[in-house]
Amino acid sequence: MPIDTGDTTWMLISTGLVMMMTPALGFFEAGLIRAKNSLSVIMQTFSGLAILSILWFVIGFTLVFAPSQGGFIGGLDWLFFNNVPFNDSLDYAPTIPGVTFASYQMMFAVITPLLITGAFAERMKWSSFFVFIIAWSILVYYPLAHWIWGRGWLADMGVFDFAGGIVIHTSAGLGSLAAALVLGRRKNFGPDIMVPHNIPLAVIGATLLWIGWFGFNAGSVLASGALAANTLLVTHIGSATSAMVWILLSWKRSGKPSTTAVINGAIAGLAGVTPAAGFISAQNSFILGIALGLASYYAILLLKEHWKIDDALDVSSVHGVTGIVGSLAIGLVASTLINPAGPDGLLYGNPMQLAIQALGVAVAAALGFGGTVVIMKVINATIGLKVREEEEDIGLDVTQHAERAYVS
Amino acid sequence: MPIDTGDTTWMLISTGLVMMMTPALGFFEAGLIRAKNSLSVIMQTFSGLAILSILWFVIGFTLVFAPSQGGFIGGLDWLFFNNVPFNDSLDYAPTIPGVTFASYQMMFAVITPLLITGAFAERMKWSSFFVFIIAWSILVYYPLAHWIWGRGWLADMGVFDFAGGIVIHTSAGLGSLAAALVLGRRKNFGPDIMVPHNIPLAVIGATLLWIGWFGFNAGSVLASGALAANTLLVTHIGSATSAMVWILLSWKRSGKPSTTAVINGAIAGLAGVTPAAGFISAQNSFILGIALGLASYYAILLLKEHWKIDDALDVSSVHGVTGIVGSLAIGLVASTLINPAGPDGLLYGNPMQLAIQALGVAVAAALGFGGTVVIMKVINATIGLKVREEEEDIGLDVTQHAERAYVS
Amino acid sequence: MPIDTGDTTWMLISTGLVMMMTPALGFFEAGLIRAKNSLSVIMQTFSGLAILSILWFVIGFTLVFAPSQGGFIGGLDWLFFNNVPFNDSLDYAPTIPGVTFASYQMMFAVITPLLITGAFAERMKWSSFFVFIIAWSILVYYPLAHWIWGRGWLADMGVFDFAGGIVIHTSAGLGSLAAALVLGRRKNFGPDIMVPHNIPLAVIGATLLWIGWFGFNAGSVLASGALAANTLLVTHIGSATSAMVWILLSWKRSGKPSTTAVINGAIAGLAGVTPAAGFISAQNSFILGIALGLASYYAILLLKEHWKIDDALDVSSVHGVTGIVGSLAIGLVASTLINPAGPDGLLYGNPMQLAIQALGVAVAAALGFGGTVVIMKVINATIGLKVREEEEDIGLDVTQHAERAYVS
Repeated sequence: MPIDTGDTTWMLISTGLVMMMTPALGFFEAGLIRAKNSLSVIMQTFSGLAILSILWFVIGFTLVFAPSQGGFIGGLDWLFFNNVPFNDSLDYAPTIPGVTFASYQMMFAVITPLLITGAFAERMKWSSFFVFIIAWSILVYYPLAHWIWGRGWLADMGVFDFAGGIVIHTSAGLGSLAAALVLGRRKNFGPDIMVPHNIPLAVIGATLLWIGWFGFNAGSVLASGALAANTLLVTHIGSATSAMVWILLSWKRSGKPSTTAVINGAIAGLAGVTPAAGFISAQNSFILGIALGLASYYAILLLKEHWKIDDALDVSSVHGVTGIVGSLAIGLVASTLINPAGPDGLLYGNPMQLAIQALGVAVAAALGFGGTVVIMKVINATIGLKVREEEEDIGLDVTQHAERAYVS
Repeated sequence: MPIDTGDTTWMLISTGLVMMMTPALGFFEAGLIRAKNSLSVIMQTFSGLAILSILWFVIGFTLVFAPSQGGFIGGLDWLFFNNVPFNDSLDYAPTIPGVTFASYQMMFAVITPLLITGAFAERMKWSSFFVFIIAWSILVYYPLAHWIWGRGWLADMGVFDFAGGIVIHTSAGLGSLAAALVLGRRKNFGPDIMVPHNIPLAVIGATLLWIGWFGFNAGSVLASGALAANTLLVTHIGSATSAMVWILLSWKRSGKPSTTAVINGAIAGLAGVTPAAGFISAQNSFILGIALGLASYYAILLLKEHWKIDDALDVSSVHGVTGIVGSLAIGLVASTLINPAGPDGLLYGNPMQLAIQALGVAVAAALGFGGTVVIMKVINATIGLKVREEEEDIGLDVTQHAERAYVS
Repeated sequence: MPIDTGDTTWMLISTGLVMMMTPALGFFEAGLIRAKNSLSVIMQTFSGLAILSILWFVIGFTLVFAPSQGGFIGGLDWLFFNNVPFNDSLDYAPTIPGVTFASYQMMFAVITPLLITGAFAERMKWSSFFVFIIAWSILVYYPLAHWIWGRGWLADMGVFDFAGGIVIHTSAGLGSLAAALVLGRRKNFGPDIMVPHNIPLAVIGATLLWIGWFGFNAGSVLASGALAANTLLVTHIGSATSAMVWILLSWKRSGKPSTTAVINGAIAGLAGVTPAAGFISAQNSFILGIALGLASYYAILLLKEHWKIDDALDVSSVHGVTGIVGSLAIGLVASTLINPAGPDGLLYGNPMQLAIQALGVAVAAALGFGGTVVIMKVINATIGLKVREEEEDIGLDVTQHAERAYVS
């Protein structure tokens, strides 16, 4: 099939939008933590964009997408993007240049490990962060992405994941839970002390994430046209509905609905609708959005308030729990009327899909959780994970980066 | 006509850009008011994005665009976007998916009522805001949008409004004037006390609004190509020229041209060029931009400094007056040489169009003003409109949302 | 060739992205200087967007791109964009509307003179700035752009510059060096006093610049498709690699890699890869990115720390030195395998290209430096350049614009 300019334009833009999501994640997180550590998460996400882009270029893309070695990992045909054509397509995406497919997927490989920065914020050493994201990419993300998106063994079993509920949100969400548990709580952990220092900054991040997610989900069609159009709508409805649920729940709880609540609700909806976005109708996305809002809201109450697990920015709930719900929802409401290349779910006559989706989720959860524990334990035993207590008092910005976010 | 990938890509992007304008409006407004209320407008706009997206999905789209019931309102064929195709087009836009038309129009329905937040900023209760935007959508925006864009009675009479000067800016601008009058002034109203608290934040908002407006106006072509190209240029020239006028006027007035002036000038130009953007030449846009800059600048002096009407962010001037000027300009300089589907104005041999445009403006002004008065009076008589005086002293962020924008 | 919707959509978006880079530049710069002057650079860049857009519309476009008068300057055929078609193409870009080519090029003409604001930040009078950018556009940018992009004498000699390493970065970089030298240092110039006041704001700027640069470089193809796809990838790899070099160098130097370093590294990579972006492979971009990171890092040490030249935001290093390196790199690694319309470099069998590129760089450097010296000397002798010492103490925001960026 020849390269189509409309499809290519959509994928160039989507690549840019997903690229922008990584620093946007940094703004979102930075605004919600204390000023003295705000720069450290911005530094981690922005630097992570550089580091993980290079890692993907050198070794990641070939391990994930080059022809499979027995279903477990890709070969080395495409090291340094060698042999990836720019004036011809790859068969993953027949109407766009091969390098566009590779560039677009790069941005997913960049943001996924960096989601976990939200869990270990305000206490992780820079050097440990640096080692962690590289190790996690190689040991968790690249294999898992190959298994599902690179025609590996989970894809062979029929697991579907449109834009990353299993590959991205389940793995990074459970990785965040593991990171929070291994690393332990921040000093004086508690909601009264740890108030957000700059909520407008967090909302700037949330806004750029929202528009970026249009590229993330509707770009995952790898072409423009009817399916991309439906996917964008499904994404927006999922996000708006989940945000609406959070408005109402936080209003009901305290009488004062908060900005922090509504942006968390939006992100929860965006993350949760991701795996199903290319397989379901807008009407089902509305129902899914309600479920995602409820699940993420109560998951935070359980994990943070009840169990006192210090996942600083609730990544395990906002991305992990929602990613699981959305990935299972494929098994319920996916329909080949929407996407003939996808599955039917239970409501469309295929009850088995739910079990298959559950298998995919379980594998990603186990690998994400287990891989994170192993990597963090090894880092802890060698260069150490956590800053010293007095460094935590001073803040990571000064102790790790010799900078302050604001000087008046 | 088959769905075109280039057109669809343009409309997906435009949808994202117009979506982004709503939180951008929040940043613009928040930066220009006092810190203690800055989060409340961000909360209103961001929440409004969620609330009004859902309202549009449930009932708005069908009331505006489904086949007309006698020219007054659309039918109920498309409740919850049912029967809106994603793999086929609607006849409103024959080269893009039906859901893309519906999603794109959603973003207009979201931002219009939220423009009025700029008028009632710093003193309106959250609960009243919540009720207000829903009521205003149903009673003002949906009917008016149907009358002009949904093939209703004003369209039948020959009223043209390319991207919203009548439907959006006149109605919300006059609504803002009404809101300011009904609600009354802020405590200690005066320019010396009410200095902007974070101008860089306002400029971030203005920047995102400017690029967003390319999607707003050039997206209103509902396709890519020649007319979209001209519309983008017309939009940019209108904005740049009006901004330039404001630079010179504020320089002349005080010797010190201000950032607040130039961003207001840009937004005034963008708002005012909107109705005509798809019907006029770039050269006429340059002249229109001068008129818009002058009209909005002196309107603020009249309304705020002379008449002491406390429209906090001058929505009635920056959007309302400019929307009227631009809508009437269609009657002067529109040309079928630019857009064969549009009208000719006075200068192109059709003097009647000016009178027709004036009718459209008058209807929108009356409905926007009257509808707002009625809705606000009813809210005032039931749940109340304005926060108590001591709440106004403390600020809306703490009293309505239990949050502070910044914590150092 | 008929107008292509996919190509047109790409160019409309790219126009918007490059437009956005100008205010983004303002955020980047503002965050890295002191609070009391932060608004002045935001004012200069945002106002510059308005002023230079109009100048381009009135006179710039025709001087640069209308049929050449002997290779030295364009004629006056296209004053006020007259005769520039919207429903037909120009032969510069046969698949997009003529006005889109003109609008896209407008955004380059806007940002180039404004790069120099980074050199004279914190001490230049508003009125001098106003005159300077207009004079520099007419005397430096328009002629130089015509010579290379408008089919002038340097293009005839075989000089290539894909998206502006010579026309933009060399000229503005050397102009910045000249401006710093003519204007002299800021009072009490030194790194201990001049700490960045709001690094998150600078990173917001850097983020928008990065995505904007996708439109800047890949948009310079003037069409979508294979070459745009490769150019976007080359741009991203160049940026990420240079940022990575800065992370490692700043980490090695102080043990504490800084956010300021990584964003400077990214911008240095983006600026430096610009001239070659449409002519080289991604693999060569990786190597170029390393060179750009090293060159810009050590150039700052030399110019600022060793020679004490007060180019406030290191424009001469981050844009100038990198622009030169990237422009010469065309002479080494450009390949007609990537772009048949471009040159081959030394490594692809054409050693002469390096000398030709050096000529282009030398001309741009001489014109940029010399033109800036002349313009600034004339301004200094007439209306004066620099604010008075007590105004510098108070800050430009209050003394030039009667505003403060932040009020708590």
